[in-house]
Amino acid sequence: MYIAIDAMSGDWGLSVAIPAAVTAVKKWDDLNLILVGDKEQIVSMLPAEYKDSSRILIQHASEVVLMDDHPVQALRQKKDSSMRVAIDLVKKNEATACLSSGNTGALMATSTLVLRTIKSIERPAICAAMPSQKGWVYTLDLGANVDVSAVQLHQFALMGIAMVQAIENIEKPTVGLMNVGSEESKGNKITQKAHALISNDENINYLGFVEGDDIYVGNVDVIVMGGLEGNIALKTSEGLAKYISAIIKQEFKANILNKIIALISYPILKNIAKKLSPSKYNGACLIGLNGIVVKSHGNADVNGFLQAIGVTRQLAQNNTPEKIKNLIRT
Amino acid sequence: MYIAIDAMSGDWGLSVAIPAAVTAVKKWDDLNLILVGDKEQIVSMLPAEYKDSSRILIQHASEVVLMDDHPVQALRQKKDSSMRVAIDLVKKNEATACLSSGNTGALMATSTLVLRTIKSIERPAICAAMPSQKGWVYTLDLGANVDVSAVQLHQFALMGIAMVQAIENIEKPTVGLMNVGSEESKGNKITQKAHALISNDENINYLGFVEGDDIYVGNVDVIVMGGLEGNIALKTSEGLAKYISAIIKQEFKANILNKIIALISYPILKNIAKKLSPSKYNGACLIGLNGIVVKSHGNADVNGFLQAIGVTRQLAQNNTPEKIKNLIRT
Repeated sequence: MYIAIDAMSGDWGLSVAIPAAVTAVKKWDDLNLILVGDKEQIVSMLPAEYKDSSRILIQHASEVVLMDDHPVQALRQKKDSSMRVAIDLVKKNEATACLSSGNTGALMATSTLVLRTIKSIERPAICAAMPSQKGWVYTLDLGANVDVSAVQLHQFALMGIAMVQAIENIEKPTVGLMNVGSEESKGNKITQKAHALISNDENINYLGFVEGDDIYVGNVDVIVMGGLEGNIALKTSEGLAKYISAIIKQEFKANILNKIIALISYPILKNIAKKLSPSKYNGACLIGLNGIVVKSHGNADVNGFLQAIGVTRQLAQNNTPEKIKNLIRT
Repeated sequence: MYIAIDAMSGDWGLSVAIPAAVTAVKKWDDLNLILVGDKEQIVSMLPAEYKDSSRILIQHASEVVLMDDHPVQALRQKKDSSMRVAIDLVKKNEATACLSSGNTGALMATSTLVLRTIKSIERPAICAAMPSQKGWVYTLDLGANVDVSAVQLHQFALMGIAMVQAIENIEKPTVGLMNVGSEESKGNKITQKAHALISNDENINYLGFVEGDDIYVGNVDVIVMGGLEGNIALKTSEGLAKYISAIIKQEFKANILNKIIALISYPILKNIAKKLSPSKYNGACLIGLNGIVVKSHGNADVNGFLQAIGVTRQLAQNNTPEKIKNLIRT
């Protein structure tokens, strides 16, 4: 199995993508990679043992989509970008999946144009696993669709189920629909209509409405919402995690005594930081397409990018698009 | 100045409201309270020095709105509830403001019916201060309106400004509009339209679009969004704070050595917990009405309820509804 990696994107480009790629092929024997980007640079940075190995191929691309490129411009004007070439490899079946840490809008626009959505799926969504007190909760859409219809929310539920089936190996994942309260009467018209559609779908193990705090409780496998709401939930969480972390640091550095206690507590504080590290949660799937496209956080470090390669590998192994097609059909 | 307190509501009723009320009148000389609820019970629980004092009056009410009462039923069938009577006191100018920790939907419905919205304000909103790395950020709407128009979002901006002027004493507060990105082209139609309305209002010191993580950064005084989005931001934050707190506890209790280190770190951990305690952030304003109504969290403890009394006092002292009228007029 080959996974195509847009190696030039993100804040760190090759300096993160190459070490992560090398670690990944050492870690997973069943995994081979195609690094897409400036061939000369890639070759110069690859360790000798991988310069001419079938485990890591190189596909040249002459351009790079920048973080502030407009999605439509990236799509039209950078046809030889590392992002585009990586997606094209999936389209041509030369790679089973692709991974990029580039501009989300451009990645969404380009992969939708090249791969197209699965038949009868209206719009792809961004889905990622969030940590909870009881394992992972898969949330979608995290920002691809700022205007959603009830039909789309229903489709997001099916797409989330397929993602959980692929990665968590849970046969009948439970689904919740994000709302301002758990009572049946709550919510706007779109939420109410989506509630009816999802309730009536016998393929969905539906638990009803959930609220924001349910993301971190973990009593449900999939939480469905519009892209505006999902994006706010995700970024609010990132902001709060940074804020809490700043307070913890501030208190442990408040005076000499506290600094000494911080030294004693160091292994514990390090473990806490590790459990809350964004690296652990990296790798969001652009789901609903005829092909697997995964987005890594733009500023992911080597561990974070490795985590995203792992997510891509699992989705590829389990053929998520096929799972969605089956759920839609039945 | 008298503030009416719905003393029967919330998870703890009189057992929280009475000690908080007594502490409040001791703390603030300019503050007098009217406790609304079962007179006999209130008298029996009040300390002797306040049983017959002009600092704490008692207004009997024979009913209580329950947490799971439907708002419309509470409104129609419980006309002598402690909540309703407290709001009526504001309507009759016998109290400058009122505070309740009861059913949010019932409080919103009842106060809107009794007090009415300020002329030309379409809908009241829920506004609360969230902590950030640089002071307080006032966010609204936190859940009163699950369907919002661009005009309403524009009005929320003005209402948020009035709240910051009243509590923080900032003359020209800055305003941000919640979106999925900061670029001008981002967002759905309602957000785009609201962006145009707010941009064109010379009374608003508008910084443009903000994202979820900006809530906790504190570069803006007011963040405006729809009630669904605000409710998700608030509850996601509550959920994540609990999750992080659980991880910290778990790590500090993982083994005997860690437990010993936890004892040594206790003063630091206690300070961190104090800084992150929900009590510190209690007291959301139902803003946009002809009168001041504040909502305390249902499970607030005495400190939390006291904090909410303080918020109510500040809003009353600064006559927030009048400030909103001025902003709307100009």
